[in-house]
Amino acid sequence: MNLIIDIGNSTTKLSIFKHEKEVFSERISHLSLQILTALADKWQAIDKCILAASGQVNPAIVSELKNIAPQLLLFSSSTPLPFKNKYATPETLGLDRLAAIAGANALYKKENVLVIDAGTAITFDFINKKEEYLGGNISPGMDIRFKALNHYTEKLPLVKASGSITAIGDSTFSAIENGVVNGIIFEMEGMIETMRRNYTNLTVLLTGGDAHFFDNKLKKTIFVVQNLVSIGLNTILNYNVKIN
Amino acid sequence: MNLIIDIGNSTTKLSIFKHEKEVFSERISHLSLQILTALADKWQAIDKCILAASGQVNPAIVSELKNIAPQLLLFSSSTPLPFKNKYATPETLGLDRLAAIAGANALYKKENVLVIDAGTAITFDFINKKEEYLGGNISPGMDIRFKALNHYTEKLPLVKASGSITAIGDSTFSAIENGVVNGIIFEMEGMIETMRRNYTNLTVLLTGGDAHFFDNKLKKTIFVVQNLVSIGLNTILNYNVKIN
Repeated sequence: MNLIIDIGNSTTKLSIFKHEKEVFSERISHLSLQILTALADKWQAIDKCILAASGQVNPAIVSELKNIAPQLLLFSSSTPLPFKNKYATPETLGLDRLAAIAGANALYKKENVLVIDAGTAITFDFINKKEEYLGGNISPGMDIRFKALNHYTEKLPLVKASGSITAIGDSTFSAIENGVVNGIIFEMEGMIETMRRNYTNLTVLLTGGDAHFFDNKLKKTIFVVQNLVSIGLNTILNYNVKIN
Repeated sequence: MNLIIDIGNSTTKLSIFKHEKEVFSERISHLSLQILTALADKWQAIDKCILAASGQVNPAIVSELKNIAPQLLLFSSSTPLPFKNKYATPETLGLDRLAAIAGANALYKKENVLVIDAGTAITFDFINKKEEYLGGNISPGMDIRFKALNHYTEKLPLVKASGSITAIGDSTFSAIENGVVNGIIFEMEGMIETMRRNYTNLTVLLTGGDAHFFDNKLKKTIFVVQNLVSIGLNTILNYNVKIN
């Protein structure tokens, strides 16, 4: 069994995969030795682990992981990938973007896939049917658009999306809410349309914390895969076990 | 002659109008008594003035303006307007948004007009052919989108637009540049399309500091009116002189 650990900026996601199937997942605020030991007690079949971290990891955590899973992969920009990476600056490419692409490639083998990850940032990433990752775009996510309007202007209030959106707002609050939410919808749809013009049979996957917020607001056909990054990390782990 | 003063967050714009025509304009960082006296010396025909300020104004400046222009209008949310304001919260509506709508209404009398002001924030404002201002949207401008990505994430660099845009980026720098710039283009085009579906014969005006950056990147027909806010302030001044 595979233990998947994805340490993000604000939360850590733990998942357990049996072959290609996620059998357990949990989101925690801070990864401790106690949590790891409890997890290993409960899931004694864990023998492999991949650790993806956006920053430094406590060495005691890495030691404990080696005890739990003899085959431990520390995911980095130099980890071999099950697809061709055509990015010009792979060393600055976010590990979550690589993992999401690996997940897309595992679910939709040899297809043109656009992955939209709607989180703190919104990332658009594209892999073609020749299994070449060609790159993508990054723009601010919903939450930081609201924050930026408040922080970088003198008079605009901090708004949170309530969910009811119209074409135009008739108050400052609704103008900001509609502006930010409609802006992101137009951006996602514009990006999907642009990629569809260049690549027929394009599959679009939506993931990330805001995926369910935008899911039913998009007019284009998309599939929400909430655990795409975990699926991708599991795929990268299995691939590296196989080639080593 | 009309003196138009628009004190914004970072700069102040001075314009002089003879009837409906702007005969002089200047952008300065700080409005001083000396600048005003020099201006009054040069343009002795000034007899009316409108002052629009996003914050407090030095009382000495207001006194001096009363000397220069006996008819002084301090533009506020309660100033009578030459169009119907249907906004639900007029007291929090930015004066620049009102002025831009007044300018649109002066240039395209009794037409459906969408005004896009691309500055620190991007504002979309709509007035219909019955001269009713119905409201609009607010979203972050280009500059603060770049800043937000850098400020609110751990690893993304601060990017400035270089101008050469492709569909997707193949480096972190180009991914951010393409993401932000394409996102704004998709947003503007999506908003124009939405309004065109509801209102036939829609005229679209683009103004603000980034107007020329986006002008040639938009596929829709739009008109750039760089001094739309000044035209609107001049219109509001003339309207108030007439009704008083």
